[in-house]
Amino acid sequence: MSATQSAEYRESPGRIMSGEMAEQPRVLRHVLTEGAARIQEVAAAVAARRPRFVLLAGRGTSDNAALYAKYLLEIRLGLPCGLTSMSTTTAYGAKPDLRDVLAITVSQSGGSPDVVASTRAAREAGAITVAVTNDPDSPLAGVSEFHIDILAGPEKALPATKTYTASLLALYLFAEGLRGGDGAAARVLPELAESVLARQDEVRALASRYRFADRMVITSRGYGYPTAKEAALKLMETSYIPALSYSGADLLHGPLAMVDNVSPVIAVVTDGSGGEALQPVLDRLRGRGADLVVVGPAARLQGATAGFALPTRGVPEELQPVLEILPLQLLAYEVTMARGQDPDAPRALAKVTETH
Amino acid sequence: MSATQSAEYRESPGRIMSGEMAEQPRVLRHVLTEGAARIQEVAAAVAARRPRFVLLAGRGTSDNAALYAKYLLEIRLGLPCGLTSMSTTTAYGAKPDLRDVLAITVSQSGGSPDVVASTRAAREAGAITVAVTNDPDSPLAGVSEFHIDILAGPEKALPATKTYTASLLALYLFAEGLRGGDGAAARVLPELAESVLARQDEVRALASRYRFADRMVITSRGYGYPTAKEAALKLMETSYIPALSYSGADLLHGPLAMVDNVSPVIAVVTDGSGGEALQPVLDRLRGRGADLVVVGPAARLQGATAGFALPTRGVPEELQPVLEILPLQLLAYEVTMARGQDPDAPRALAKVTETH
Repeated sequence: MSATQSAEYRESPGRIMSGEMAEQPRVLRHVLTEGAARIQEVAAAVAARRPRFVLLAGRGTSDNAALYAKYLLEIRLGLPCGLTSMSTTTAYGAKPDLRDVLAITVSQSGGSPDVVASTRAAREAGAITVAVTNDPDSPLAGVSEFHIDILAGPEKALPATKTYTASLLALYLFAEGLRGGDGAAARVLPELAESVLARQDEVRALASRYRFADRMVITSRGYGYPTAKEAALKLMETSYIPALSYSGADLLHGPLAMVDNVSPVIAVVTDGSGGEALQPVLDRLRGRGADLVVVGPAARLQGATAGFALPTRGVPEELQPVLEILPLQLLAYEVTMARGQDPDAPRALAKVTETH
Repeated sequence: MSATQSAEYRESPGRIMSGEMAEQPRVLRHVLTEGAARIQEVAAAVAARRPRFVLLAGRGTSDNAALYAKYLLEIRLGLPCGLTSMSTTTAYGAKPDLRDVLAITVSQSGGSPDVVASTRAAREAGAITVAVTNDPDSPLAGVSEFHIDILAGPEKALPATKTYTASLLALYLFAEGLRGGDGAAARVLPELAESVLARQDEVRALASRYRFADRMVITSRGYGYPTAKEAALKLMETSYIPALSYSGADLLHGPLAMVDNVSPVIAVVTDGSGGEALQPVLDRLRGRGADLVVVGPAARLQGATAGFALPTRGVPEELQPVLEILPLQLLAYEVTMARGQDPDAPRALAKVTETH
């Protein structure tokens, strides 16, 4: 960290994260206008190689973006996918046969050694490798056959925000490109993102209920599940609240025992099949007297303790994750500020994490 | 729940879970003597079909067993693997192309509708389907081409214990069978499991430190990571302590901010490459003053706050998970008893969870 940055942290807590969250509509617009054509070219080149399986790799926030891509590729392309356990290569030296495999690695910095090593190994094992990063000059971009630039500009706050939504959009455009689409449905996102981010006062009011929370559960299903995981990560790394994320189905297989009227629950409800599949879980939670906050379309807020209504009309379910995370990023920020901590500088973390 | 069972719960809290944990050496022996031959036959039949990619599915404890199999198959067989997101089929009706795919579904009861539906869909999509269950007459066994019986006998306690270790051993024998091995290395397990379970007093002493914990972090890497996840699930569903599990690498990418001297950490350290890869994470945790309890070989307990030494001599790293979970099952039991709750009957849970 430079001396200037340190001074910024001291003078104005949260200024950097706040600024980067606000940049998101502009970044999304930039990906659509400046990035889409190149992403389509990469997608066409990859599609011509006819991959039959996909492996996705990432750490932290990028792992959640990779999970989003898994849903997209399985549902919209019928491609079976797996998330890579990087240690099988980096710690155990596994030598898998990756012919016909598309290996997608997501990393903001493109610099973490294990991410680079596992991608290099995948390429050597015969995979078609695609790096999705914020730095075309990064080691990861260098070892990958293809590179997709998420064009988010330098990210200085430790909690990743704009690089997450930029990665989701880039992955959406790539997946659409693989099936020959142009991703035009995404054009509504920048303006809608602006309208969501303008409602920070609503989120601040929601945040007050978590001022003294000592745990949280965040749940969703389908396309919203990566949002639940990313929201939990944001809350943990800024406010230090232990936030547990579960798919609605997994929540019923054990962790539900932990939920009662002192464990607040946030449900991310998509407008579509995932949201419908989550409904029985929400009914169970209500039956247990859980404090339930819903982030989703207005109609799904009925019966919840509180909520944040998302604009979903005209937004296909698979694009809603780009909007869903915005109020939850703001929530992590507001809860952290309310606790007198600095969301820009969580203790213990470095921006580029060197795991091996 | 029958009236008799209800009476048992009231009279003697924890009696059922305690009894089932104690059965584990006998169950492991039973799988080795009565199950191994049939598992070898299934493995030979599957190997002859030359699968190129593996999808694994499970919920809750069975999902953790599936994750163990993912490490085994990737490291020892070089087969790329993915964990199934069941909602892509059950909620979104995805129609993937699963030719050359081996689909392994793990489920104690073999009865959860989503598990059955996603396995049926996988078979229709061309996958070789293998069900790993505790009930050969279950719907899951019925829809799968192959069935592996984990032979654990009826499991009555809500927290699964003996079916977890039986599933691990069955999956190990299956993976070894795929590569033409006989799994003889596993024969040491029943006796070692007995010796670990005999040390319940040591675990009771450890449990006292978590009597008032309001959160826990459990970490590991490689083969030990499924153990960390399963231990967290056991603790949550019995004691209701929010227990967060992370691979050591992911812990450094965010959640580490949450760990300090009031967040106890349990590290599962395997004797082998995974344990070595975890060492830098343990050093970081110690540097932050974390209360660190290590479950692993005696040499790895040095420098930790406390620990439980596992017998790992002569036990290949890939078999250690069968032993590692035992003190952690006991820990969940002891913490729950110390809190005056009944580990046999967590609130809110049913033994067969019907998710769709």
